[in-house]
Amino acid sequence: LTTDYSPLEVFNENENLDEIHLGRHVLAEFFECDPNTLNNIDKVEKYMMEAALECGATIVQKCFHMFSPYGVSGVVIISESHLAIHTWPELGYAAVDLFTCGSKCDPKVAYEFLKDKFHSKNASFTELKRGIITRNSMKVVEKPFEVMEQIAN
Amino acid sequence: LTTDYSPLEVFNENENLDEIHLGRHVLAEFFECDPNTLNNIDKVEKYMMEAALECGATIVQKCFHMFSPYGVSGVVIISESHLAIHTWPELGYAAVDLFTCGSKCDPKVAYEFLKDKFHSKNASFTELKRGIITRNSMKVVEKPFEVMEQIAN
Repeated sequence: LTTDYSPLEVFNENENLDEIHLGRHVLAEFFECDPNTLNNIDKVEKYMMEAALECGATIVQKCFHMFSPYGVSGVVIISESHLAIHTWPELGYAAVDLFTCGSKCDPKVAYEFLKDKFHSKNASFTELKRGIITRNSMKVVEKPFEVMEQIAN
Repeated sequence: LTTDYSPLEVFNENENLDEIHLGRHVLAEFFECDPNTLNNIDKVEKYMMEAALECGATIVQKCFHMFSPYGVSGVVIISESHLAIHTWPELGYAAVDLFTCGSKCDPKVAYEFLKDKFHSKNASFTELKRGIITRNSMKVVEKPFEVMEQIAN
């Protein structure tokens, strides 16, 4: 997929910049959520779609699945990457991935939105850089992503 | 969704165990891939579906999307969580997530399979634990995931 900027242009316009990254990946852990919400596929899908729009993304496709006896998995593919969720209602837990590219989306907005909708009393996230490009190589370098930020609140 | 084991049973059967985790999340960075493969939605979908089967997963749903002018995004929802991919053919780069739960899937098998199919000359992955449950609380604890392993090869 494409980002809304050209890496070459970004480097030309920012002389001090040595590397950029294509994507931001927020891995969220939602604890002590409302179990009924986590086990309701309609609500989970609705909130994930709304989270995509809230954070400035363009929705491309979605697929959600209800498990027996409980739990929901779902993904919203956005022009800027994807949002994914897996819920364990019996544990009050949801694992959520918020992966966005480009400058117009902020995955942390989706994080705050979902934390509120799931009534999570304890949540944490880690934000990672995906697809790091260096000025020297002007190609994606062969190194793992970097942790940008990690908090628990 | 459900795992193929009960956390309570695992703790009862393993006296020395203080915590378990619900999921394994492999974040893979595939560099210097074959651009034609990364820009072919049929091939990307085929390899992602095969990767799911190779690593022991059960496929539930899939959705793939071709971007203009190039790039593919796609997700395979499996009973054990999901596999996701985003490709930048113009950079020879693919960001892949391999998230599995339970004991019968090994996300690293999918990693090796895809690395080979995309002809990636440089690849790295990081494996994280998602949904950590402690013996004391018998619920998902309010702490971020842990890095299990990180390699570049």
